[in-house]
Amino acid sequence: MTYKIAILGASGYTGAELVRLIASHPSIEIAALSGNSKAGQSMAQVFPHLRHLDLPTLTTIEDVDFAGIDLAFCALPHKTSQEVIAKLPRDLKIVDLSADFRLRDPQAYKTWYGNDHAAPELQEEAVYGLTEFYRDEIAKARLVAGTGCNAATGQFALRPLISAGVINLDEIIMDLKCAVSGAGRSLKENLLHAELSEGAHAYAVGGTHRHLGEFDQEFSALAGRPVQVQFTPHLIPANRGILATTYVKGDPKAIHKALEIRYVNETFIEVLPMNEHPSIRHVRGSNFCHIGVVADRRDGHAIVIAALDNLTKGSSGQALQNANLMLGLPETEGLMMAPLFP
Amino acid sequence: MTYKIAILGASGYTGAELVRLIASHPSIEIAALSGNSKAGQSMAQVFPHLRHLDLPTLTTIEDVDFAGIDLAFCALPHKTSQEVIAKLPRDLKIVDLSADFRLRDPQAYKTWYGNDHAAPELQEEAVYGLTEFYRDEIAKARLVAGTGCNAATGQFALRPLISAGVINLDEIIMDLKCAVSGAGRSLKENLLHAELSEGAHAYAVGGTHRHLGEFDQEFSALAGRPVQVQFTPHLIPANRGILATTYVKGDPKAIHKALEIRYVNETFIEVLPMNEHPSIRHVRGSNFCHIGVVADRRDGHAIVIAALDNLTKGSSGQALQNANLMLGLPETEGLMMAPLFP
Amino acid sequence: MTYKIAILGASGYTGAELVRLIASHPSIEIAALSGNSKAGQSMAQVFPHLRHLDLPTLTTIEDVDFAGIDLAFCALPHKTSQEVIAKLPRDLKIVDLSADFRLRDPQAYKTWYGNDHAAPELQEEAVYGLTEFYRDEIAKARLVAGTGCNAATGQFALRPLISAGVINLDEIIMDLKCAVSGAGRSLKENLLHAELSEGAHAYAVGGTHRHLGEFDQEFSALAGRPVQVQFTPHLIPANRGILATTYVKGDPKAIHKALEIRYVNETFIEVLPMNEHPSIRHVRGSNFCHIGVVADRRDGHAIVIAALDNLTKGSSGQALQNANLMLGLPETEGLMMAPLFP
Amino acid sequence: MTYKIAILGASGYTGAELVRLIASHPSIEIAALSGNSKAGQSMAQVFPHLRHLDLPTLTTIEDVDFAGIDLAFCALPHKTSQEVIAKLPRDLKIVDLSADFRLRDPQAYKTWYGNDHAAPELQEEAVYGLTEFYRDEIAKARLVAGTGCNAATGQFALRPLISAGVINLDEIIMDLKCAVSGAGRSLKENLLHAELSEGAHAYAVGGTHRHLGEFDQEFSALAGRPVQVQFTPHLIPANRGILATTYVKGDPKAIHKALEIRYVNETFIEVLPMNEHPSIRHVRGSNFCHIGVVADRRDGHAIVIAALDNLTKGSSGQALQNANLMLGLPETEGLMMAPLFP
Repeated sequence: MTYKIAILGASGYTGAELVRLIASHPSIEIAALSGNSKAGQSMAQVFPHLRHLDLPTLTTIEDVDFAGIDLAFCALPHKTSQEVIAKLPRDLKIVDLSADFRLRDPQAYKTWYGNDHAAPELQEEAVYGLTEFYRDEIAKARLVAGTGCNAATGQFALRPLISAGVINLDEIIMDLKCAVSGAGRSLKENLLHAELSEGAHAYAVGGTHRHLGEFDQEFSALAGRPVQVQFTPHLIPANRGILATTYVKGDPKAIHKALEIRYVNETFIEVLPMNEHPSIRHVRGSNFCHIGVVADRRDGHAIVIAALDNLTKGSSGQALQNANLMLGLPETEGLMMAPLFP
Repeated sequence: MTYKIAILGASGYTGAELVRLIASHPSIEIAALSGNSKAGQSMAQVFPHLRHLDLPTLTTIEDVDFAGIDLAFCALPHKTSQEVIAKLPRDLKIVDLSADFRLRDPQAYKTWYGNDHAAPELQEEAVYGLTEFYRDEIAKARLVAGTGCNAATGQFALRPLISAGVINLDEIIMDLKCAVSGAGRSLKENLLHAELSEGAHAYAVGGTHRHLGEFDQEFSALAGRPVQVQFTPHLIPANRGILATTYVKGDPKAIHKALEIRYVNETFIEVLPMNEHPSIRHVRGSNFCHIGVVADRRDGHAIVIAALDNLTKGSSGQALQNANLMLGLPETEGLMMAPLFP
Repeated sequence: MTYKIAILGASGYTGAELVRLIASHPSIEIAALSGNSKAGQSMAQVFPHLRHLDLPTLTTIEDVDFAGIDLAFCALPHKTSQEVIAKLPRDLKIVDLSADFRLRDPQAYKTWYGNDHAAPELQEEAVYGLTEFYRDEIAKARLVAGTGCNAATGQFALRPLISAGVINLDEIIMDLKCAVSGAGRSLKENLLHAELSEGAHAYAVGGTHRHLGEFDQEFSALAGRPVQVQFTPHLIPANRGILATTYVKGDPKAIHKALEIRYVNETFIEVLPMNEHPSIRHVRGSNFCHIGVVADRRDGHAIVIAALDNLTKGSSGQALQNANLMLGLPETEGLMMAPLFP
Repeated sequence: MTYKIAILGASGYTGAELVRLIASHPSIEIAALSGNSKAGQSMAQVFPHLRHLDLPTLTTIEDVDFAGIDLAFCALPHKTSQEVIAKLPRDLKIVDLSADFRLRDPQAYKTWYGNDHAAPELQEEAVYGLTEFYRDEIAKARLVAGTGCNAATGQFALRPLISAGVINLDEIIMDLKCAVSGAGRSLKENLLHAELSEGAHAYAVGGTHRHLGEFDQEFSALAGRPVQVQFTPHLIPANRGILATTYVKGDPKAIHKALEIRYVNETFIEVLPMNEHPSIRHVRGSNFCHIGVVADRRDGHAIVIAALDNLTKGSSGQALQNANLMLGLPETEGLMMAPLFP
C-alpha cells in the first residue's frame, strides 16, 4: 500500500531534503507540495537537483487539497507553523519540522520564543519527535514535533548518561560545531560564501540559543530535577553536519558502557569503540548518528562526541522516521542510504 | 535472485563509491573486497562512513575466492589492472574502472600511456563502457572498460552533435572544471586542503591529458574521419563534480534539438530547456548528467555545458549501470537516488 | 607629504579592500568614509577585521567634507556612482570603481547598461583605468574609471597579442573562473555558502556579461577594426581570484614572446616561463597578475592563462595604483605586499 | 641599518610565511634560505606566490654561510631542530619555530615528546617566545623558542585570568577549532581536500596533544601550583585560523576587566567589548589576536573566546615580533598589515 503525503514549505532546505528522501521511499508518494513564495513554480525551478522527479507543482497552502492525504510534513518557519497547523483537518497526521511544538510548557515556550503560543491545545497534544526515545508515543500520535537539530545531537550523546546516572548533572558543557545549512536558505551576510568560507565563530553564546529550551525540558524530565547545561554552538565552513563535543564528569568506561547498552538495538545510532570518535564527513547525507567516548587524562573526566547530518538525522530524516512509525511502516524504510563521502 | 560481486581495489574513492551504491541495491550482494595495502582491515576502519554495513573484511586479491562470484569490479590503479585481470578466471564478468582497456588500438594505448599493453587480447575483447552509446555491446560483454570521468562528460555533450552533423568538427574546444576526488586518494601536495581550497588552476594543458585518447578514438570513429578537440581540464576547490564547457560552431537551436532527440528516452541524461545550463551542485552523489545549450551573441556559435558527478555517473555509477546490463538486471536498478543538495 | 583621501561606499568589499591597502600606505591618509546604509557606524562594526585601525566613522555622502580632500575613491553601485560624482567638486580627483565610466561611447553604454548616461560630459572626461596601458593619461586625469575585474584579467592576457598581431582576431575564446567576492556583499541565494560550496556554474553565458562592452571597446580600438571575443564567466567556490583561460590561434612562441616583451618592465605583471601556467592561490591578496602560455598539441593553437585577485589587482589595488599616479606618488607605493598563501 | 637573516626550513608553510612577512620589512633582509629536500630550487618553484621577490636559492643547511647573518629563523621539524641548532655558531641569534625548546623541564620534554633532549644546555638557555609575556627576556635572549600555535591562543585567553585570580583553576576547559595549515604541508590522508572539506573532527582527544605540555608549564608557573586544563583541538575545513573557546568559572565582568587591563597597551591583542566575540575570518593573514568574553546564563560561568591566525600570530608573525625585539628594532615593525577579508 502506498501512502500519500503533502509537504508544506517545500521550498526550503528541509523541504527539499524530504523530497530527496521520499523519492526513494517504496511506500510513500508525494501528492502535494506547497511553497507560498514560489507557488506556481515547479520544483525543478526551485531545486534543479530534483528535476528528474515527477513532482506536483508548488502551490499555496490554501490550494492544497488534503482529501486523500494521509500525512503532512510542515517545513514552515517558526510561528507560521502553529498558525497553519491550527487550520488543518483535525484527523490529518502531521509531522512538524518547526520549533513550534517542541516545548510542552506554554510558559517555557513564551520564555524562549517571546510570544504566546497560538495553538496551546495542539502544543499539549504534540509528541516530542526524538524517535529513539519517544517511539511508542510517536507511533500513536497525530501530531509530532520534530526536534531541533542541535537538540537531537546533544540528546543522543547525553540522555543515556543522565538515565544511567553516570555523570555529574551540574557540570555538563556542550560545544557544538554546526554546518551552515542549519541556518536554512535565509539571506544573511554571515551565511554568504565569502564570509563563511575561512570563517568560524560562535553564536548565541551564553545560553541564549533556543534549543536550550529543549535540553532543559528533556534533561530535567529525565533526571527528575532541574538540569541546565552550558551550550555554545559554532558555525563552521561546511554545508551539512553537527559535531557535538560534550564535556562531562564521570567514569569514562561507565559512560561508554551506558551508551553501548542503550543503543545496541538502534539501527541509526552507532557507538564507536572506546576512545574512537566521529567526524561529520562520515555521516553526511545519511540518517546515522555516530557517538564516541574518550577518557580525559584527568580521572573522572570524559569527552563524548556525537556527529550527525543536521538536514537528515537532525531534521528531515528524523521526520520521515517518525512518519514511518505513524503510518505503520517499518521505521527504517527509505532511510538506509549510506553517507556520501567524499 | 541475488548476484554476488567482488570489488578489487576497494580502499580507494571509486571502490568506496561502489560499496555505497551497491549497499542499497536490491539484487546485488558484496561477497568480497580486496585492498592490498589495507588487507586485514575492515571497511569501517578504512572508510568510517560505511561502518553501519555488514561487509567482508578487506583481503589481498590473491585471497579472494572467485568461486560463486558473478562479477568483479576492478577499481585498481592503471597498469596494475591489466596485470590483475589477465590472471582472473576467463568466465568471470568484469567491469574495469581503470584506464587500461579504454583504448582499442594498441598503438594509441602506447602513445598515451607510455608502455606496451600487457594483455592485448583482453584489450581487443573489452567493450567501451559509455552505457548510453554501447548499451547492446555491454549487455553481451564479459569485460567492460569504464570510461574516463572527463571523457564521459565531454562525450555526453558532444557525441549527438557529431552524429547529427550540426557542428564544425575542427573547431571544438572543451574547458573542464573538475573536482578533486577525480584525482583519487593520492597524497600529493596540490591535493591538500590548504593548497586547493582557494585555488583553481589548469592541468595537463596543451593536449596532454590521457582522456584525450578517448576523445580522439570515439569522436573520430563517430565522424568517420580524424577529429581532434582542444581540451583543458582545471582543478577547482570542490570534492565532486565535473563541469564541461564546450565551445562549438553551429546553429544553437539545431544543437539543442540534436541533444533533445538523442536523449529523450535516456533516464540519466537531462537536457535542460534552451538557454538554461547546469551546475555540478545539482548532480552531486547521483547518476544524472545535466546538459544545457546557450546561443552565443555571435551567430553560429554555441556553448554546450554538461555536468555530472565524477565518482558516480563518471565512474562507479556508470560501472554499476554497466554491471546491471551484464547481469540482466534493469539498467537503472540501485541508481535512482536523487542528488544531495546542499 | 601625506595626501588625504575619502572613500565613498566603504561598506562593501572593494571599499574595505581599499581601507586594508591604504592602512599600510606611507603617504596616504583616510580622512573620510561614507556608507549610506551604515552611516553612524564604525568600520569595526561593519568590518571587524579593521578594528585595530583608527578610522573615521561612516557618514552619509552628504556629510563628507571635501575641503582638504585630495582624492576620492568611489566604490558605489553602478548608476549611483554617476549621480554622486556629478555633484562632487569639479577640482576633486576621483577614482571610480563602478562600471559607470568604463565605456566611452554613450550608445555602447546604453546598450550594455540599459539606460542613458546621467553625466555624459564626465563620461567623456574619464580615463580608462587599466594602469599598465593608460599610465600617462591616468597621471594627468582628474577622473579615472576602474576597469571590470574580469575585463582587466582578459586584457592583461590579450592586449599585447592583439597589438603585436600574433593571433587571429576572429577566433578568441575566454573561459573565466571567478571567485565569489566579485559579486560583492549582495544577498543572493546563489552566493550562500550552502549553495556555492561544492558548486560551479557558468553565468551570463552567450555574450551577455557587461564586461564584454569593455572588451569590445578596447580590443577594437587596439586592432583598428571590430573585434568580438567569446566570453563565458563561471562562478567557482573560492573567495578571491579570477583565472582567465583564453584560447587563441597563433604561434605559441610568438605569443609568449609578445607578452614577455610587453611586460618586461611591469612590476605587477609576471609572465611565467613558456609552458608554465598560474593558479589563483598564488596571487591572493596581492596586486600581482601571473600569465602563462602553453602550446596546444595542434600547431597554431595556444592557451594563454592569466590569474589575479579580483579585489586587489582587479579592483581596489588597481584603484590605488591609479591614485598613486594621479597624486604624483611612486606607482607601486603601498602595493608590494606578497600574496597570502596558503 | 639593515639586518641579515637566514631561514632554515624555508620550504614549509611557516618558512614561506616568514618570507611573506619579511619581504615587506624595512630593516630586515633575507640573506639565506635552506630547505634540504628542495635544495637547488628557487623559492618561486617551491612557492610560486613568492615569485616576484628576489630571493636566494634554497640550499642545504650545510651550505648556509652564517658569517654576516645576524639572526636565524629555524622552521625545521621537531627533533631535527635541536640537532641543527646545537651545531650553529654560538653567537648567532636564533628564533626557533619548532617545539624543541618550548618546555624548560627535561623530564616534561621527555614525557610529551618521547625522547631525551639532544641539547639540554640549549633547552635551559632558551626563552619561551610568547612575546607579550616574556618581552624583556626575549629582548636579551640569544635563543627564543616559538610557542605552539594552539598554546599561544589559549594563553592569550587565560593567562591574565590566572594572574588576576578571577577564575577557578581546576575547572578550565578549552575547545579549539584549528584550520588545516597548522598541520603543515605534510602528506596525510586526512589533510586532503576531499577528506577535510565538509569534515570536522576532534583530534588528540583526552589530553594527549603536546601543546598541553606548554599549558601545564606556563599556567602552573603563573598560579604557583599545578594547573591542568582540559584541552580538545578540532580540525575544521579552513586554511588559517584558530578559535579557542574556553569555558571558565568566575565573574564574567571581572574576567573581562582583567583582560582589558592586561592588554590595554598591547598593539596586537584586541579585547572586544563585553559580550562580543571574535571570528577567525577577521584575523586572517595578520598578527592580531581578538578576544571576547560572554557571560553564561548561569551565574559564575563565562565563555572566553580568542581568535588568531595560526601561521602569523601563532607562529611566523610571533617569530618576527621576537626577532624585532632581539635585534633592537621596534617590536611591531613589518607586522601591522591588516587582515585579509574576505
